[in-house]
Amino acid sequence: VSQDPGVHLIPLGQIPDVAPGDSIAELLLASLRETGLALVDGDVIVVAHKIVSKAEGRIISLHDVEPSLRASALADRLEADSRLVEVILRESRRVIRAENGVLITETHHGFKCAHAGVDRSNAGPPEADTVVLLPLDPDSSARRVRDELKVTTQCEIAVIINDSHGRPWRMGTVGLALGSCGVAPLKDLRGQTDMYGRELVSSRIALIDEIAAAASLVMSGADERVPAVLVRGLSYPRSLQGAASILRPRDRDLFP
Amino acid sequence: VSQDPGVHLIPLGQIPDVAPGDSIAELLLASLRETGLALVDGDVIVVAHKIVSKAEGRIISLHDVEPSLRASALADRLEADSRLVEVILRESRRVIRAENGVLITETHHGFKCAHAGVDRSNAGPPEADTVVLLPLDPDSSARRVRDELKVTTQCEIAVIINDSHGRPWRMGTVGLALGSCGVAPLKDLRGQTDMYGRELVSSRIALIDEIAAAASLVMSGADERVPAVLVRGLSYPRSLQGAASILRPRDRDLFP
Repeated sequence: VSQDPGVHLIPLGQIPDVAPGDSIAELLLASLRETGLALVDGDVIVVAHKIVSKAEGRIISLHDVEPSLRASALADRLEADSRLVEVILRESRRVIRAENGVLITETHHGFKCAHAGVDRSNAGPPEADTVVLLPLDPDSSARRVRDELKVTTQCEIAVIINDSHGRPWRMGTVGLALGSCGVAPLKDLRGQTDMYGRELVSSRIALIDEIAAAASLVMSGADERVPAVLVRGLSYPRSLQGAASILRPRDRDLFP
Repeated sequence: VSQDPGVHLIPLGQIPDVAPGDSIAELLLASLRETGLALVDGDVIVVAHKIVSKAEGRIISLHDVEPSLRASALADRLEADSRLVEVILRESRRVIRAENGVLITETHHGFKCAHAGVDRSNAGPPEADTVVLLPLDPDSSARRVRDELKVTTQCEIAVIINDSHGRPWRMGTVGLALGSCGVAPLKDLRGQTDMYGRELVSSRIALIDEIAAAASLVMSGADERVPAVLVRGLSYPRSLQGAASILRPRDRDLFP
Protein backbone atom coordinates (compact mmCIF):
# COMPACT_ATOMS: atom_id res chain seq x y z
CA VAL A 1 0.00 0.00 0.00
CA SER A 2 1.24 3.42 -0.98
CA GLN A 3 2.70 5.83 1.56
CA ASP A 4 1.95 8.81 -0.68
CA PRO A 5 -0.69 11.28 0.29
CA GLY A 6 -3.55 11.69 -2.12
CA VAL A 7 -6.36 9.59 -3.41
CA HIS A 8 -6.21 6.18 -4.99
CA LEU A 9 -8.75 4.95 -7.56
CA ILE A 10 -8.63 1.16 -7.54
CA PRO A 11 -10.59 -0.79 -10.17
CA LEU A 12 -12.69 -3.68 -8.85
CA GLY A 13 -12.95 -6.21 -11.61
CA GLN A 14 -13.65 -9.94 -11.55
CA ILE A 15 -17.34 -9.23 -11.13
CA PRO A 16 -19.35 -11.75 -13.19
CA ASP A 17 -22.34 -10.80 -15.31
CA VAL A 18 -25.03 -9.81 -12.82
CA ALA A 19 -28.49 -11.39 -12.76
CA PRO A 20 -31.71 -10.29 -11.04
CA GLY A 21 -31.59 -11.09 -7.34
CA ASP A 22 -27.81 -11.01 -7.03
CA SER A 23 -26.38 -9.19 -4.02
CA ILE A 24 -24.16 -6.32 -5.15
CA ALA A 25 -22.54 -6.23 -1.71
CA GLU A 26 -21.54 -9.90 -1.97
CA LEU A 27 -20.14 -9.41 -5.47
CA LEU A 28 -18.12 -6.42 -4.23
CA LEU A 29 -16.75 -8.34 -1.27
CA ALA A 30 -15.72 -11.22 -3.55
CA SER A 31 -14.02 -8.76 -5.90
CA LEU A 32 -12.19 -7.10 -3.00
CA ARG A 33 -10.96 -10.50 -1.84
CA GLU A 34 -9.71 -11.25 -5.39
CA THR A 35 -7.92 -7.89 -5.43
CA GLY A 36 -6.38 -8.62 -2.02
CA LEU A 37 -7.99 -5.61 -0.39
CA ALA A 38 -10.00 -5.17 2.80
CA LEU A 39 -12.27 -2.18 3.32
CA VAL A 40 -11.27 0.46 5.85
CA ASP A 41 -13.24 3.32 7.41
CA GLY A 42 -13.58 6.20 5.00
CA ASP A 43 -13.40 4.15 1.82
CA VAL A 44 -15.83 5.07 -0.92
CA ILE A 45 -17.11 2.45 -3.34
CA VAL A 46 -18.51 3.65 -6.64
CA VAL A 47 -20.74 1.15 -8.44
CA ALA A 48 -21.86 1.42 -12.06
CA HIS A 49 -25.62 1.69 -12.07
CA LYS A 50 -25.82 -0.99 -14.74
CA ILE A 51 -25.00 -3.85 -12.38
CA VAL A 52 -27.30 -2.41 -9.71
CA SER A 53 -30.12 -2.19 -12.24
CA LYS A 54 -29.51 -5.74 -13.39
CA ALA A 55 -29.48 -7.02 -9.80
CA GLU A 56 -32.75 -5.21 -9.18
CA GLY A 57 -34.36 -6.69 -12.28
CA ARG A 58 -34.56 -3.32 -14.03
CA ILE A 59 -34.11 -4.89 -17.45
CA ILE A 60 -36.67 -5.37 -20.15
CA SER A 61 -36.71 -7.06 -23.53
CA LEU A 62 -37.92 -4.89 -26.37
CA HIS A 63 -39.66 -8.01 -27.73
CA ASP A 64 -42.18 -7.53 -24.91
CA VAL A 65 -42.84 -3.83 -25.59
CA GLU A 66 -45.88 -2.62 -27.50
CA PRO A 67 -45.27 0.97 -28.58
CA SER A 68 -48.05 3.48 -28.03
CA LEU A 69 -49.20 5.81 -30.80
CA ARG A 70 -47.30 8.65 -29.13
CA ALA A 71 -44.09 6.62 -28.99
CA SER A 72 -44.49 5.53 -32.63
CA ALA A 73 -44.97 9.10 -33.82
CA LEU A 74 -41.98 10.35 -31.81
CA ALA A 75 -39.83 7.44 -33.02
CA ASP A 76 -40.75 8.24 -36.62
CA ARG A 77 -39.63 11.80 -36.15
CA LEU A 78 -36.33 10.79 -34.47
CA GLU A 79 -35.73 7.78 -36.74
CA ALA A 80 -35.49 5.63 -33.63
CA ASP A 81 -36.83 2.22 -32.53
CA SER A 82 -40.45 2.83 -31.48
CA ARG A 83 -40.22 0.15 -28.75
CA LEU A 84 -37.17 1.88 -27.27
CA VAL A 85 -38.96 5.24 -27.37
CA GLU A 86 -41.95 3.64 -25.63
CA VAL A 87 -39.70 2.45 -22.79
CA ILE A 88 -38.07 5.89 -22.55
CA LEU A 89 -41.46 7.60 -22.32
CA ARG A 90 -42.59 5.18 -19.61
CA GLU A 91 -39.47 6.07 -17.60
CA SER A 92 -40.05 9.82 -18.01
CA ARG A 93 -42.27 12.46 -16.51
CA ARG A 94 -41.79 14.79 -19.49
CA VAL A 95 -39.92 15.25 -22.76
CA ILE A 96 -37.40 18.13 -22.62
CA ARG A 97 -36.06 18.04 -26.19
CA ALA A 98 -36.78 15.78 -29.14
CA GLU A 99 -34.89 16.93 -32.21
CA ASN A 100 -31.86 16.12 -34.40
CA GLY A 101 -32.19 12.47 -33.38
CA VAL A 102 -31.75 13.45 -29.72
CA LEU A 103 -34.35 12.58 -27.08
CA ILE A 104 -33.79 14.25 -23.72
CA THR A 105 -36.34 13.67 -20.99
CA GLU A 106 -36.81 14.19 -17.29
CA THR A 107 -37.08 10.82 -15.57
CA HIS A 108 -39.53 10.09 -12.78
CA HIS A 109 -36.59 10.60 -10.38
CA GLY A 110 -35.93 14.08 -11.82
CA PHE A 111 -32.76 13.23 -13.79
CA LYS A 112 -32.52 15.17 -17.03
CA CYS A 113 -30.66 13.08 -19.56
CA ALA A 114 -30.69 11.44 -22.96
CA HIS A 115 -33.01 8.44 -23.33
CA ALA A 116 -34.06 8.59 -19.65
CA GLY A 117 -30.87 6.64 -18.96
CA VAL A 118 -32.24 3.61 -20.85
CA ASP A 119 -29.26 1.83 -22.38
CA ARG A 120 -28.76 -1.06 -24.76
CA SER A 121 -25.01 -1.51 -24.31
CA ASN A 122 -23.99 -4.43 -22.12
CA ALA A 123 -27.66 -5.06 -21.44
CA GLY A 124 -27.73 -8.63 -22.69
CA PRO A 125 -27.08 -10.84 -25.71
CA PRO A 126 -28.10 -9.12 -28.97
CA GLU A 127 -30.86 -11.61 -29.80
CA ALA A 128 -32.64 -10.83 -26.50
CA ASP A 129 -32.89 -7.15 -27.45
CA THR A 130 -32.65 -6.18 -23.80
CA VAL A 131 -32.35 -2.68 -22.39
CA VAL A 132 -31.29 -1.63 -18.90
CA LEU A 133 -33.34 0.97 -17.02
CA LEU A 134 -32.10 3.15 -14.17
CA PRO A 135 -32.64 1.83 -10.64
CA LEU A 136 -36.05 2.84 -9.28
CA ASP A 137 -34.55 4.61 -6.26
CA PRO A 138 -30.75 4.90 -6.58
CA ASP A 139 -30.32 6.46 -3.11
CA SER A 140 -32.05 3.46 -1.54
CA SER A 141 -29.90 1.15 -3.66
CA ALA A 142 -26.75 2.91 -2.42
CA ARG A 143 -27.94 2.75 1.17
CA ARG A 144 -28.71 -0.96 0.88
CA VAL A 145 -25.25 -1.78 -0.52
CA ARG A 146 -23.63 0.33 2.20
CA ASP A 147 -25.67 -1.29 4.98
CA GLU A 148 -24.88 -4.80 3.75
CA LEU A 149 -21.16 -4.01 3.47
CA LYS A 150 -21.21 -2.59 6.99
CA VAL A 151 -22.77 -5.72 8.47
CA THR A 152 -19.94 -7.83 7.07
CA THR A 153 -16.99 -5.46 7.48
CA GLN A 154 -18.03 -3.18 10.37
CA CYS A 155 -16.57 -0.32 8.31
CA GLU A 156 -18.04 3.16 7.94
CA ILE A 157 -17.85 3.60 4.20
CA ALA A 158 -19.76 5.50 1.54
CA VAL A 159 -21.38 4.13 -1.60
CA ILE A 160 -22.10 6.02 -4.80
CA ILE A 161 -24.01 4.65 -7.79
CA ASN A 162 -22.83 6.33 -10.98
CA ASP A 163 -23.84 6.72 -14.58
CA SER A 164 -22.47 8.74 -17.51
CA HIS A 165 -24.54 11.61 -18.85
CA GLY A 166 -24.08 14.17 -21.58
CA ARG A 167 -24.10 17.89 -20.88
CA PRO A 168 -25.96 20.66 -22.72
CA TRP A 169 -22.87 22.69 -23.63
CA ARG A 170 -19.99 20.25 -23.84
CA MET A 171 -19.47 17.15 -25.93
CA GLY A 172 -19.00 13.73 -24.40
CA THR A 173 -20.31 12.15 -21.25
CA VAL A 174 -19.05 12.41 -17.68
CA GLY A 175 -19.67 10.19 -14.69
CA LEU A 176 -22.10 11.53 -12.11
CA ALA A 177 -23.89 10.25 -9.05
CA LEU A 178 -27.38 8.80 -9.43
CA GLY A 179 -27.47 7.67 -5.82
CA SER A 180 -25.30 7.97 -2.74
CA CYS A 181 -25.11 7.20 0.94
CA GLY A 182 -22.45 8.08 3.51
CA VAL A 183 -20.86 11.11 1.81
CA ALA A 184 -22.27 14.64 1.70
CA PRO A 185 -23.55 15.31 -1.84
CA LEU A 186 -22.41 18.93 -1.65
CA LYS A 187 -19.26 20.20 0.06
CA ASP A 188 -20.04 23.67 1.33
CA LEU A 189 -17.15 26.13 1.45
CA ARG A 190 -19.36 29.13 2.27
CA GLY A 191 -18.19 30.96 5.36
CA GLN A 192 -14.61 29.70 5.04
CA THR A 193 -11.92 32.20 4.15
CA ASP A 194 -9.61 32.31 1.17
CA MET A 195 -5.81 32.57 1.34
CA TYR A 196 -6.12 36.33 1.89
CA GLY A 197 -8.68 36.02 4.68
CA ARG A 198 -11.64 36.98 2.48
CA GLU A 199 -14.84 35.10 3.26
CA LEU A 200 -16.27 32.96 0.47
CA VAL A 201 -19.87 33.74 -0.35
CA SER A 202 -20.81 31.08 -2.86
CA SER A 203 -18.90 27.89 -3.25
CA ARG A 204 -20.54 24.54 -3.13
CA ILE A 205 -18.77 21.62 -4.71
CA ALA A 206 -20.77 18.72 -6.12
CA LEU A 207 -18.60 16.25 -4.25
CA ILE A 208 -20.44 13.07 -5.19
CA ASP A 209 -20.39 13.99 -8.87
CA GLU A 210 -16.64 14.61 -8.79
CA ILE A 211 -16.11 11.24 -7.07
CA ALA A 212 -18.38 9.58 -9.65
CA ALA A 213 -16.43 11.18 -12.51
CA ALA A 214 -13.09 10.15 -10.99
CA ALA A 215 -14.28 6.56 -10.70
CA SER A 216 -15.46 6.61 -14.32
CA LEU A 217 -11.84 7.17 -15.35
CA VAL A 218 -10.90 3.64 -14.31
CA MET A 219 -14.27 2.11 -15.17
CA SER A 220 -14.76 3.29 -18.65
CA GLY A 221 -14.36 0.72 -21.33
CA ALA A 222 -16.67 -0.58 -23.98
CA ASP A 223 -17.14 -3.93 -22.25
CA GLU A 224 -17.58 -2.49 -18.74
CA ARG A 225 -15.37 -5.14 -17.19
CA VAL A 226 -14.76 -2.84 -14.21
CA PRO A 227 -18.21 -2.05 -12.84
CA ALA A 228 -16.96 -0.79 -9.47
CA VAL A 229 -14.12 1.31 -8.09
CA LEU A 230 -12.65 1.68 -4.63
CA VAL A 231 -11.78 5.31 -3.82
CA ARG A 232 -9.28 5.36 -0.96
CA GLY A 233 -7.62 8.25 0.84
CA LEU A 234 -10.24 10.90 0.23
CA SER A 235 -11.33 13.00 3.17
CA TYR A 236 -14.94 14.05 2.91
CA PRO A 237 -17.84 15.23 5.05
CA ARG A 238 -20.12 12.34 5.93
CA SER A 239 -23.84 12.41 5.49
CA LEU A 240 -26.76 10.07 4.99
CA GLN A 241 -28.38 12.58 2.64
CA GLY A 242 -28.79 11.15 -0.83
CA ALA A 243 -27.93 12.25 -4.35
CA ALA A 244 -31.53 13.29 -5.02
CA SER A 245 -30.77 16.43 -2.99
CA ILE A 246 -28.37 17.61 -5.70
CA LEU A 247 -31.09 17.93 -8.35
CA ARG A 248 -31.80 21.59 -9.01
CA PRO A 249 -35.40 22.39 -8.08
CA ARG A 250 -37.65 23.10 -11.06
CA ASP A 251 -38.31 26.70 -9.99
CA ARG A 252 -34.58 27.41 -10.09
CA ASP A 253 -33.92 25.70 -13.42
CA LEU A 254 -33.07 28.39 -15.99
CA PHE A 255 -32.86 25.81 -18.81
CA PRO A 256 -36.16 23.91 -18.72
CA VAL B 1 5.28 3.98 -4.67
CA SER B 2 2.22 1.78 -4.73
CA GLN B 3 2.19 -1.57 -6.50
CA ASP B 4 -1.60 -1.44 -6.78
CA PRO B 5 -3.21 -1.02 -10.15
CA GLY B 6 -5.36 2.00 -10.60
CA VAL B 7 -4.93 5.73 -10.64
CA HIS B 8 -3.29 7.92 -8.05
CA LEU B 9 -4.27 11.55 -7.49
CA ILE B 10 -1.34 13.26 -5.77
CA PRO B 11 -1.73 16.82 -4.47
CA LEU B 12 1.07 19.22 -5.40
CA GLY B 13 1.25 21.82 -2.69
CA GLN B 14 4.06 24.10 -1.56
CA ILE B 15 3.34 26.42 -4.48
CA PRO B 16 3.73 30.03 -3.33
CA ASP B 17 1.30 32.80 -4.27
CA VAL B 18 1.81 33.31 -7.99
CA ALA B 19 2.66 36.67 -9.56
CA PRO B 20 2.53 37.86 -13.16
CA GLY B 21 5.51 36.53 -15.11
CA ASP B 22 6.08 33.47 -12.94
CA SER B 23 6.75 30.21 -14.77
CA ILE B 24 4.10 27.65 -13.88
CA ALA B 25 6.40 24.87 -15.10
CA GLU B 26 9.17 25.96 -12.71
CA LEU B 27 6.74 26.18 -9.80
CA LEU B 28 5.46 22.68 -10.61
CA LEU B 29 8.97 21.25 -10.80
CA ALA B 30 9.85 22.83 -7.44
CA SER B 31 6.68 21.39 -5.92
CA LEU B 32 7.43 17.94 -7.35
CA ARG B 33 10.93 18.07 -5.83
CA GLU B 34 9.41 19.02 -2.43
CA THR B 35 7.00 16.09 -2.76
CA GLY B 36 9.88 13.77 -3.63
CA LEU B 37 8.45 12.88 -7.02
CA ALA B 38 9.89 12.83 -10.52
CA LEU B 39 7.67 12.90 -13.59
CA VAL B 40 7.38 9.79 -15.73
CA ASP B 41 5.93 9.26 -19.20
CA GLY B 42 2.16 9.20 -19.13
CA ASP B 43 1.75 11.44 -16.07
CA VAL B 44 -0.98 14.04 -16.27
CA ILE B 45 -0.65 17.32 -14.39
CA VAL B 46 -3.82 19.25 -13.68
CA VAL B 47 -3.30 22.91 -12.85
CA ALA B 48 -5.93 25.20 -11.35
CA HIS B 49 -6.59 27.97 -13.84
CA LYS B 50 -6.23 30.55 -11.10
CA ILE B 51 -2.46 30.26 -10.86
CA VAL B 52 -2.16 30.18 -14.64
CA SER B 53 -4.25 33.33 -14.91
CA LYS B 54 -2.17 35.05 -12.24
CA ALA B 55 1.09 34.07 -13.95
CA GLU B 56 -0.29 35.45 -17.22
CA GLY B 57 -1.32 38.73 -15.59
CA ARG B 58 -5.02 38.03 -16.08
CA ILE B 59 -5.94 39.92 -12.90
CA ILE B 60 -7.57 43.27 -12.60
CA SER B 61 -8.40 45.57 -9.71
CA LEU B 62 -12.02 46.69 -9.61
CA HIS B 63 -10.68 50.10 -8.49
CA ASP B 64 -9.56 50.58 -12.10
CA VAL B 65 -12.88 49.64 -13.68
CA GLU B 66 -15.40 52.21 -14.91
CA PRO B 67 -18.77 50.51 -15.39
CA SER B 68 -20.66 51.21 -18.60
CA LEU B 69 -24.32 52.18 -18.53
CA ARG B 70 -25.21 48.66 -19.66
CA ALA B 71 -23.20 47.11 -16.82
CA SER B 72 -24.71 49.49 -14.27
CA ALA B 73 -28.26 48.68 -15.34
CA LEU B 74 -27.60 44.94 -15.30
CA ALA B 75 -25.87 45.20 -11.91
CA ASP B 76 -28.88 47.07 -10.51
CA ARG B 77 -31.18 44.32 -11.66
CA LEU B 78 -28.96 41.56 -10.22
CA GLU B 79 -28.01 43.52 -7.07
CA ALA B 80 -24.37 43.00 -7.98
CA ASP B 81 -21.23 45.17 -8.06
CA SER B 82 -21.43 47.18 -11.29
CA ARG B 83 -17.64 47.11 -11.73
CA LEU B 84 -17.67 43.32 -11.50
CA VAL B 85 -20.53 43.14 -14.02
CA GLU B 86 -18.54 45.42 -16.32
CA VAL B 87 -15.57 43.03 -16.21
CA ILE B 88 -17.87 40.04 -16.83
CA LEU B 89 -19.42 41.73 -19.87
CA ARG B 90 -15.98 42.57 -21.27
CA GLU B 91 -15.04 38.89 -20.97
CA SER B 92 -18.23 37.73 -22.71
CA ARG B 93 -19.57 37.54 -26.23
CA ARG B 94 -23.19 37.35 -25.02
CA VAL B 95 -25.39 37.12 -21.94
CA ILE B 96 -27.19 33.77 -21.69
CA ARG B 97 -29.24 34.31 -18.51
CA ALA B 98 -29.46 37.23 -16.08
CA GLU B 99 -32.07 36.55 -13.41
CA ASN B 100 -32.48 35.57 -9.75
CA GLY B 101 -29.08 37.13 -9.02
CA VAL B 102 -27.46 34.73 -11.51
CA LEU B 103 -25.42 35.99 -14.47
CA ILE B 104 -24.52 33.31 -17.00
CA THR B 105 -22.64 34.34 -20.12
CA GLU B 106 -20.76 32.86 -23.03
CA THR B 107 -17.12 33.91 -22.84
CA HIS B 108 -15.08 34.92 -25.86
CA HIS B 109 -13.61 31.38 -25.75
CA GLY B 110 -17.10 29.87 -25.92
CA PHE B 111 -17.33 28.70 -22.29
CA LYS B 112 -20.85 29.00 -20.88
CA CYS B 113 -20.62 29.66 -17.19
CA ALA B 114 -21.52 31.93 -14.32
CA HIS B 115 -19.72 35.29 -14.26
CA ALA B 116 -17.63 34.44 -17.33
CA GLY B 117 -15.34 32.63 -14.91
CA VAL B 118 -14.38 35.93 -13.25
CA ASP B 119 -13.64 35.15 -9.61
CA ARG B 120 -12.87 37.17 -6.50
CA SER B 121 -11.80 34.33 -4.22
CA ASN B 122 -8.05 33.97 -3.72
CA ALA B 123 -7.58 36.80 -6.21
CA GLY B 124 -5.63 39.09 -3.90
CA PRO B 125 -5.77 40.95 -0.59
CA PRO B 126 -9.28 42.31 0.10
CA GLU B 127 -8.20 45.97 -0.02
CA ALA B 128 -6.92 45.53 -3.60
CA ASP B 129 -10.39 44.38 -4.75
CA THR B 130 -8.79 42.15 -7.35
CA VAL B 131 -10.55 39.67 -9.60
CA VAL B 132 -9.02 36.85 -11.62
CA LEU B 133 -10.06 36.35 -15.25
CA LEU B 134 -9.80 33.14 -17.25
CA PRO B 135 -6.60 32.65 -19.28
CA LEU B 136 -6.92 34.20 -22.75
CA ASP B 137 -6.18 30.90 -24.49
CA PRO B 138 -6.17 27.99 -22.02
CA ASP B 139 -5.13 25.42 -24.64
CA SER B 140 -2.02 27.48 -25.44
CA SER B 141 -1.34 27.85 -21.72
CA ALA B 142 -1.53 24.07 -21.29
CA ARG B 143 0.71 23.50 -24.28
CA ARG B 144 3.30 25.97 -22.96
CA VAL B 145 3.43 24.33 -19.52
CA ARG B 146 3.71 20.91 -21.15
CA ASP B 147 6.47 22.02 -23.52
CA GLU B 148 8.47 23.61 -20.71
CA LEU B 149 8.14 20.52 -18.52
CA LYS B 150 9.25 18.36 -21.44
CA VAL B 151 12.40 20.40 -22.00
CA THR B 152 13.47 19.83 -18.40
CA THR B 153 12.27 16.28 -17.81
CA GLN B 154 12.22 14.73 -21.33
CA CYS B 155 8.91 13.16 -20.34
CA GLU B 156 5.83 12.79 -22.52
CA ILE B 157 3.17 14.06 -20.19
CA ALA B 158 -0.20 15.77 -20.51
CA VAL B 159 -1.33 19.03 -18.94
CA ILE B 160 -4.90 20.06 -18.16
CA ILE B 161 -5.95 23.47 -16.86
CA ASN B 162 -9.12 23.16 -14.80
CA ASP B 163 -11.80 25.31 -13.29
CA SER B 164 -15.05 24.58 -11.42
CA HIS B 165 -18.33 25.37 -13.14
CA GLY B 166 -21.96 25.00 -12.20
CA ARG B 167 -24.37 22.94 -14.28
CA PRO B 168 -27.88 23.83 -15.47
CA TRP B 169 -29.67 20.91 -13.82
CA ARG B 170 -27.60 19.95 -10.81
CA MET B 171 -26.49 21.93 -7.79
CA GLY B 172 -22.84 22.53 -6.98
CA THR B 173 -19.79 22.93 -9.14
CA VAL B 174 -17.58 20.30 -10.74
CA GLY B 175 -14.06 20.53 -12.08
CA LEU B 176 -13.73 20.63 -15.85
CA ALA B 177 -11.02 21.27 -18.40
CA LEU B 178 -10.56 24.80 -19.75
CA GLY B 179 -7.42 23.84 -21.62
CA SER B 180 -5.44 20.70 -22.35
CA CYS B 181 -2.51 19.32 -24.26
CA GLY B 182 -1.25 15.76 -24.60
CA VAL B 183 -4.44 13.85 -23.82
CA ALA B 184 -7.39 13.29 -26.16
CA PRO B 185 -10.29 15.47 -25.01
CA LEU B 186 -12.80 12.79 -25.98
CA LYS B 187 -12.33 9.05 -25.64
CA ASP B 188 -14.27 7.44 -28.44
CA LEU B 189 -15.76 4.01 -27.78
CA ARG B 190 -17.80 3.93 -30.99
CA GLY B 191 -17.14 0.82 -33.04
CA GLN B 192 -15.93 -1.17 -30.04
CA THR B 193 -18.11 -4.04 -28.84
CA ASP B 194 -19.78 -4.56 -25.49
CA MET B 195 -19.45 -7.68 -23.33
CA TYR B 196 -22.02 -9.46 -25.50
CA GLY B 197 -20.32 -8.55 -28.77
CA ARG B 198 -22.80 -5.79 -29.66
CA GLU B 199 -21.24 -2.79 -31.37
CA LEU B 200 -21.52 0.53 -29.52
CA VAL B 201 -23.06 3.27 -31.61
CA SER B 202 -22.73 6.34 -29.45
CA SER B 203 -20.28 6.56 -26.60
CA ARG B 204 -17.82 9.35 -26.29
CA ILE B 205 -16.38 10.07 -22.87
CA ALA B 206 -15.29 13.60 -21.98
CA LEU B 207 -11.97 12.29 -20.74
CA ILE B 208 -10.32 15.62 -19.91
CA ASP B 209 -13.36 16.74 -17.92
CA GLU B 210 -13.35 13.54 -15.88
CA ILE B 211 -9.63 13.99 -15.17
CA ALA B 212 -10.24 17.64 -14.24
CA ALA B 213 -13.05 16.63 -11.87
CA ALA B 214 -10.92 13.90 -10.28
CA ALA B 215 -8.13 16.40 -9.65
CA SER B 216 -10.59 18.85 -8.11
CA LEU B 217 -11.25 16.25 -5.41
CA VAL B 218 -7.78 16.75 -3.93
CA MET B 219 -7.54 20.45 -4.85
CA SER B 220 -10.72 21.77 -3.45
CA GLY B 221 -10.38 23.83 -0.36
CA ALA B 222 -11.34 27.38 0.42
CA ASP B 223 -7.72 28.56 0.49
CA GLU B 224 -6.66 26.70 -2.67
CA ARG B 225 -3.38 25.59 -1.12
CA VAL B 226 -3.20 22.74 -3.63
CA PRO B 227 -3.32 24.41 -7.04
CA ALA B 228 -2.02 21.39 -8.96
CA VAL B 229 -2.44 17.63 -8.94
CA LEU B 230 -0.36 14.83 -10.40
CA VAL B 231 -2.53 12.09 -11.94
CA ARG B 232 -0.47 8.90 -12.22
CA GLY B 233 -1.35 5.48 -13.56
CA LEU B 234 -4.06 6.50 -15.98
CA SER B 235 -3.95 5.05 -19.47
CA TYR B 236 -5.32 7.43 -22.05
CA PRO B 237 -5.22 8.15 -25.77
CA ARG B 238 -2.69 10.89 -26.53
CA SER B 239 -3.46 13.91 -28.62
CA LEU B 240 -2.34 17.45 -29.13
CA GLN B 241 -5.94 18.52 -29.75
CA GLY B 242 -7.08 21.03 -27.17
CA ALA B 243 -10.05 21.38 -24.85
CA ALA B 244 -11.68 23.92 -27.15
CA SER B 245 -12.70 20.97 -29.33
CA ILE B 246 -15.06 19.75 -26.59
CA LEU B 247 -17.30 22.81 -26.75
CA ARG B 248 -20.61 21.93 -28.36
CA PRO B 249 -21.04 23.91 -31.58
CA ARG B 250 -23.73 26.57 -31.41
CA ASP B 251 -25.88 24.92 -34.07
CA ARG B 252 -26.05 21.76 -31.96
CA ASP B 253 -26.79 23.51 -28.67
CA LEU B 254 -30.36 22.71 -27.64
CA PHE B 255 -30.15 25.00 -24.58
CA PRO B 256 -29.02 28.38 -25.91
